[in-house]
Amino acid sequence: MTDYRIEQDSLGKFKVPARAWYGIQTARAVENFPISGRMPDTDFIRAHVQIKLAAARANCQPDWLTVTQRDAIVAACERILAGELLDQFVVDRFQAGAGTSHNMNSNEVIANLANVALGGEKGLYAPIHPNDHVNMGQSTNDTIPTAIRLALLAKLPRLLAASESMAAAFEQIAEREHDTVKSGRTHLQDAVPTTIGREFAAYAWTLRRAAANLGAVRPLLCQTGLGGSAAGTGLNTSPDYARRVAAELATLTGETIGVGDLAAQMQSMFDMQTLSAALRGLALELTRIANDLRLLASGPRTGLGEITLPPVQPGSSIMPGKVNPVMFEMLNQVCYQVLGQDAAVAYMTQAGQLELNVMMPALGSALFDAMDWLTNAINAATEKNLKGLVVNRERCARFIHDSVALATLLNTRIGYMKAAEIAKESEQTGKPVREIVTARNLMSEAEFNALVLAAANGVGSAGGGG
Amino acid sequence: MTDYRIEQDSLGKFKVPARAWYGIQTARAVENFPISGRMPDTDFIRAHVQIKLAAARANCQPDWLTVTQRDAIVAACERILAGELLDQFVVDRFQAGAGTSHNMNSNEVIANLANVALGGEKGLYAPIHPNDHVNMGQSTNDTIPTAIRLALLAKLPRLLAASESMAAAFEQIAEREHDTVKSGRTHLQDAVPTTIGREFAAYAWTLRRAAANLGAVRPLLCQTGLGGSAAGTGLNTSPDYARRVAAELATLTGETIGVGDLAAQMQSMFDMQTLSAALRGLALELTRIANDLRLLASGPRTGLGEITLPPVQPGSSIMPGKVNPVMFEMLNQVCYQVLGQDAAVAYMTQAGQLELNVMMPALGSALFDAMDWLTNAINAATEKNLKGLVVNRERCARFIHDSVALATLLNTRIGYMKAAEIAKESEQTGKPVREIVTARNLMSEAEFNALVLAAANGVGSAGGGG
Amino acid sequence: MTDYRIEQDSLGKFKVPARAWYGIQTARAVENFPISGRMPDTDFIRAHVQIKLAAARANCQPDWLTVTQRDAIVAACERILAGELLDQFVVDRFQAGAGTSHNMNSNEVIANLANVALGGEKGLYAPIHPNDHVNMGQSTNDTIPTAIRLALLAKLPRLLAASESMAAAFEQIAEREHDTVKSGRTHLQDAVPTTIGREFAAYAWTLRRAAANLGAVRPLLCQTGLGGSAAGTGLNTSPDYARRVAAELATLTGETIGVGDLAAQMQSMFDMQTLSAALRGLALELTRIANDLRLLASGPRTGLGEITLPPVQPGSSIMPGKVNPVMFEMLNQVCYQVLGQDAAVAYMTQAGQLELNVMMPALGSALFDAMDWLTNAINAATEKNLKGLVVNRERCARFIHDSVALATLLNTRIGYMKAAEIAKESEQTGKPVREIVTARNLMSEAEFNALVLAAANGVGSAGGGG
Amino acid sequence: MTDYRIEQDSLGKFKVPARAWYGIQTARAVENFPISGRMPDTDFIRAHVQIKLAAARANCQPDWLTVTQRDAIVAACERILAGELLDQFVVDRFQAGAGTSHNMNSNEVIANLANVALGGEKGLYAPIHPNDHVNMGQSTNDTIPTAIRLALLAKLPRLLAASESMAAAFEQIAEREHDTVKSGRTHLQDAVPTTIGREFAAYAWTLRRAAANLGAVRPLLCQTGLGGSAAGTGLNTSPDYARRVAAELATLTGETIGVGDLAAQMQSMFDMQTLSAALRGLALELTRIANDLRLLASGPRTGLGEITLPPVQPGSSIMPGKVNPVMFEMLNQVCYQVLGQDAAVAYMTQAGQLELNVMMPALGSALFDAMDWLTNAINAATEKNLKGLVVNRERCARFIHDSVALATLLNTRIGYMKAAEIAKESEQTGKPVREIVTARNLMSEAEFNALVLAAANGVGSAGGGG
Repeated sequence: MTDYRIEQDSLGKFKVPARAWYGIQTARAVENFPISGRMPDTDFIRAHVQIKLAAARANCQPDWLTVTQRDAIVAACERILAGELLDQFVVDRFQAGAGTSHNMNSNEVIANLANVALGGEKGLYAPIHPNDHVNMGQSTNDTIPTAIRLALLAKLPRLLAASESMAAAFEQIAEREHDTVKSGRTHLQDAVPTTIGREFAAYAWTLRRAAANLGAVRPLLCQTGLGGSAAGTGLNTSPDYARRVAAELATLTGETIGVGDLAAQMQSMFDMQTLSAALRGLALELTRIANDLRLLASGPRTGLGEITLPPVQPGSSIMPGKVNPVMFEMLNQVCYQVLGQDAAVAYMTQAGQLELNVMMPALGSALFDAMDWLTNAINAATEKNLKGLVVNRERCARFIHDSVALATLLNTRIGYMKAAEIAKESEQTGKPVREIVTARNLMSEAEFNALVLAAANGVGSAGGGG
Repeated sequence: MTDYRIEQDSLGKFKVPARAWYGIQTARAVENFPISGRMPDTDFIRAHVQIKLAAARANCQPDWLTVTQRDAIVAACERILAGELLDQFVVDRFQAGAGTSHNMNSNEVIANLANVALGGEKGLYAPIHPNDHVNMGQSTNDTIPTAIRLALLAKLPRLLAASESMAAAFEQIAEREHDTVKSGRTHLQDAVPTTIGREFAAYAWTLRRAAANLGAVRPLLCQTGLGGSAAGTGLNTSPDYARRVAAELATLTGETIGVGDLAAQMQSMFDMQTLSAALRGLALELTRIANDLRLLASGPRTGLGEITLPPVQPGSSIMPGKVNPVMFEMLNQVCYQVLGQDAAVAYMTQAGQLELNVMMPALGSALFDAMDWLTNAINAATEKNLKGLVVNRERCARFIHDSVALATLLNTRIGYMKAAEIAKESEQTGKPVREIVTARNLMSEAEFNALVLAAANGVGSAGGGG
Repeated sequence: MTDYRIEQDSLGKFKVPARAWYGIQTARAVENFPISGRMPDTDFIRAHVQIKLAAARANCQPDWLTVTQRDAIVAACERILAGELLDQFVVDRFQAGAGTSHNMNSNEVIANLANVALGGEKGLYAPIHPNDHVNMGQSTNDTIPTAIRLALLAKLPRLLAASESMAAAFEQIAEREHDTVKSGRTHLQDAVPTTIGREFAAYAWTLRRAAANLGAVRPLLCQTGLGGSAAGTGLNTSPDYARRVAAELATLTGETIGVGDLAAQMQSMFDMQTLSAALRGLALELTRIANDLRLLASGPRTGLGEITLPPVQPGSSIMPGKVNPVMFEMLNQVCYQVLGQDAAVAYMTQAGQLELNVMMPALGSALFDAMDWLTNAINAATEKNLKGLVVNRERCARFIHDSVALATLLNTRIGYMKAAEIAKESEQTGKPVREIVTARNLMSEAEFNALVLAAANGVGSAGGGG
Repeated sequence: MTDYRIEQDSLGKFKVPARAWYGIQTARAVENFPISGRMPDTDFIRAHVQIKLAAARANCQPDWLTVTQRDAIVAACERILAGELLDQFVVDRFQAGAGTSHNMNSNEVIANLANVALGGEKGLYAPIHPNDHVNMGQSTNDTIPTAIRLALLAKLPRLLAASESMAAAFEQIAEREHDTVKSGRTHLQDAVPTTIGREFAAYAWTLRRAAANLGAVRPLLCQTGLGGSAAGTGLNTSPDYARRVAAELATLTGETIGVGDLAAQMQSMFDMQTLSAALRGLALELTRIANDLRLLASGPRTGLGEITLPPVQPGSSIMPGKVNPVMFEMLNQVCYQVLGQDAAVAYMTQAGQLELNVMMPALGSALFDAMDWLTNAINAATEKNLKGLVVNRERCARFIHDSVALATLLNTRIGYMKAAEIAKESEQTGKPVREIVTARNLMSEAEFNALVLAAANGVGSAGGGG
């Protein structure tokens, strides 16, 4: 008795673990690529199997797949889609160009499952052959980029939901603090009065803009090149295959899958790169906003302290009582890594050559991680921290009282140059602008206060904008 | 007699060249920022002046600007928009955060022009004051990002036209060479037959996709934050100003200018960054396509040589008779620099803090260069090289005759494993697949030839895809 | 009986799994950070434990740690360093800024191990307290960046060995093929004769240069900021601690650990970023070289085919007999991801603020992956592919016979302009340059052949250069 | 009479402006590349001419260049190096791959100058021919990358001097404020006491580290590949040319010019990329430090306000009296663009193919700009702003008085957990830690004050570190 079986391919014989549902080409790849130790993304495994299932249905035509063959392949795919045998997808994320190894991994697992179900034996590949039947009318060239597109489509709604949840949390704070007047800061210097409401509404507005931009990539991803088989030619495909397999996939995934240019969609990663760019766009805004929140929460005594983020864990191993904005620090870190993933995607996008871009496996992997990690990070930051954010209204009020920039309110009455003198006096003497204004009998304190309030509640809100 | 006049601002006195139409704050900035020696982008100068003009019109209301003031400001702006005095915009591309210096440069030039036209004198700033009148209801915070958005909108159609022109040139070749059968290459290895038509149609399809993605940024850019004045509050703006100035700008520019979130649009550079990402998307595809063309044109004897690019200059200082694909090498270089500009834009986008992103001047400049250079490079490559591209049909035919990958055509008849044996024999003996096939009586030469043609003209074209 | 124990910290009570050797702060972090599911890098776990061990030794002084306390902590650390309990390090790679959670994870595991060994109980933290004893004189601020530096130092020799192994393989081929004349190609166009020897020697030379550059980062990394405790002040450290702990670490690691600026080394990630840049430098050269090899191996019939890479697995699911350069495609992919990691590192490097850079955990993680993956990829490509590389000498000879660029050899005899005419004739008629030269009686065929050989074996080799 | 002369090259006839010192190939390139309108970098023009001069001297050997030819070429070069005729270098920064156009621009200008000096005529190229004599033993392949290396070497000392000047300014402040106690901030939260001295000394230490790293690239750049002529073969070079020309260049430039691998140094841009990475390293640290300064200078009332940067221009067009940290904002912007240039350089570095990297012209240009702009920005920020920086000692003292983090000072006396209780009480009641400590009779106020001072002046300074 042995733990291995021997299989054979065009390069010769090779050992395959006896228990494995995968076959020789997968086993070769496992040996060839001991790189990261990271197994394929689950959405990607599923998407590729959905393609195999859809293809089997589309190929069930006279002279192509028989009903028996189809049913055996479909049943095998359905077991995997139900969550079984995910551990049989064993080729490293860094693998053969274009993902030949993963394609063969799927073909072999499905063929073995189907054959055993039909009374056959693992490793013999009859009556279902990995290449001739499971891969019928297909190629690594078209199934792998399509599977990447489908996996990205599967992840997209989760990220959009996370973004919307964070935007909604900002909006709730904006509504609650609609009237909380505070000092604006431009160039990090005292600026005219604004409100927490305006600030947080702007965050919500921008996040939704970034999320809408992300969602707009969906139609691009839906135009797959499935049916191109080798080199985008559609060689060896059954009649009307491209249209039929798209229809099957649409049913399976619920997405409006269409047919893009068959040649372009295996050499050009434009749509995936566009998704990556949209992720970058979101990550850059989140970076900025997380930085802002951490700055507004700085202190408690030596910083701005306009907001307080709820403590979720002690902040320091040495400084007792310290609480740090760890959730947004984590979000920052994830965003930076997303920017890194995006840089990798850009490099890989330009590396296509002639009929194919062989960098796809790593390109897909970089995007899968970016989407999952960003989704999780946004959700964690929103749930653990943003929802419990407290505004320190008293501190906001104190800052606005002190701000030198209140001199701006005088512009339309006394002109920029005279207002500048008052600002200068305030800056040099430490006296609040209000005090100088009333001392000079420019207006009463009540008038000045009304001016501040009016200024803060000006026209600049999202509502006034919209 | 002196070459200088003395002006004064809130920091004190400062010399201004007597002939200058700009004033003290511009002069200070010239001294402060001797960095790149590069003057502002012309579209940007114009866009900022359009804003000043539109604002003067919008502010012509009781208690705000008089008709005389308005007309004087408008007339000054119109002189600049007609192309006069562009040399009066003299502050370095790397300057004060948020572009205060450029805003004051515009304010001062316009004020001086207006005052002199009204019988006043340069440097006295009456009856028109740079801050109180030219800058009325405005701020660096809102006019600079708006001017960047408008300048980008001005450049956009030129780049889109260039892209479409290149795509059309690819399409023309694709139509002309619809039937030119050639060997596909995946992983740079012999693959199944395809056509020049399919290859070049795919380039056209992808370029149009990338251009459409670029065009889709327009609506985002049209939603300016003009009217936010300082810190997005709309402080010191005349009644209904944001709406009125947007309408004036729409008239001036022909774009459907609207009002975005006034606070967000000075702290978030999301839309400009999205344009940058779309430029990157285009540049990455152009990089790939330029690489492909240079590879297909490699030779004449030691490369692939499937196409010939028209010579535009001798290729070498030492190798006589050498001709290099210089136009596409130039395009490659420009694309790489565009990727660099995009990286800079991304960094600057995340650097916004609280109410403002002070990195705008450099961010805008990076984008202006990227758009101009890319437009020029695409046009030059298309006109000088792509339009004269010649396909070497005989060489394409020779490759297809030799290709080992023709064995794939046998899959559906004899199965993948048997076809692999024939491929191996061809590889090892050097015999063409055709010869082995006929020797083994698998089919006649005529049948085989028909198969090759059918394969090449398969379903994978853009048409078949559509 | 319960699966949890209750622990308490300054925020209150929290459940900890009964079996866990870690404690409450780790448990909180596990809940707070469900982001990537990826556990810490092993070299990093070890490095951080080495610091704890070294600190315990350095702190064993009157009024600080007793011998009993020291020995208990040291014994606990040694168990972990021997490979036990690695599964007790459970906080996600994306976690609390600066890595407070990982620091506490180490502190808690070590304290619990020590206390149980001393007859105590998990979760009670007496006589050894995680903060007061395991973390004595330390802070997240100094132990985490130091642990990153040490982990990078641990990985460095493996990557250098891999690079040298690949460089040596290139050199061996260069020596073997010292005389294999082939056509040079510049701009991908026929250029003057060169040799495989010169080409591959250049690869070896460049790889060694890149590796030397990588190795030069070692001294920077050795200058840790350990001893800075909180904020780089050295607060709460025992007498002469910084020097003593560095000496202990030097003993433990075999590196010449020194003391850098204590404040700088927790706010500045300059040295780690410099390592990242050196990784980038190596990855960019490997990308280029892998691209070259794949191009030289292109074919077998429709490409350059000057070299053959040994087949390691079938190349296509649809094209029988196809063999692809998968090992170098994998290397390309890894290199691109390394470039992505580097981009992330750069972003995180600039994100330090005042006394600390909180982005360190993700920064370290990005580098750990980059080094491991690159090491594995280089080794796999070298062992499986480069060592078996075959040069197709006949094909090289055919190309050199055909090359139009041979006209260059005539420059010094007949001048550039006349040589250009001959090149042109060759290009247009298809006649080899040799033939035209002899037909015109410029020299005999033997003379010309001698010229080609002399040219190819010119002065440009590494030897001639060195 | 005409404004043009007609010249001829291997592609045919072409018009050249009558007044031009350049010739036909330059004129073609001007027409081919209307991209950026930016002329070549001056250091690069000079470096390339130095190579021509050095080559003429090295080639003055029997059967190669006569003394007359040499002297004529040398004299022409010396005129250019003296600053004449720089306006004759007219090919766009984005041009023919590898810079053939610039090489011919130099060859033609020098040939025409030499011929006219010898009594000949522009455009006739006798007795000195651009290719046969000025370019003797040279190629674009080797002269252009060498000229880039030399130009970078010329710029390096200026940037190093600028960096050192800024570091010295930081150090001066550190010395002056050695005793200015202030609150540390980690995670932007109150941390233990530190000093301005320690903070600014750390900036100086890091800048010097980054500058040293930059300076370490010099030896790499000094190993040129000059002498490789075409494709690194050294074809058509005079006896002992590579060594002789290096010696001549060493004399001309004052650098220790050596001979690198002749093939590698035209295909690999490793050393230039390494310089770019070192620029990045410096720019990332400058970004961080500029961000810190702007944050410490935030206010005057609503920010941290620990330092004041001298005003150099009014800060706002609308907010009177506002002063912004414009010099460091400018520095930030330049640094971000440098990061963009570096990204472009990295992309271009990996784009080498076989014997040559054709992306060099743009690669060089990106680096030239990066170095010049960064040098200017550092100098301007140092001179205009850093040297006048004022520390607001009173405000620093107030913060330290309030900081909750003072509880850390109690760790070694009462343990981390008890100290955390005191921190919590301070945080919740607003009472300073000092007050709670004395109220609880833990120590006297004098004792506590001494503790604070000792803590701030701890061991963490650069001196203590060294």
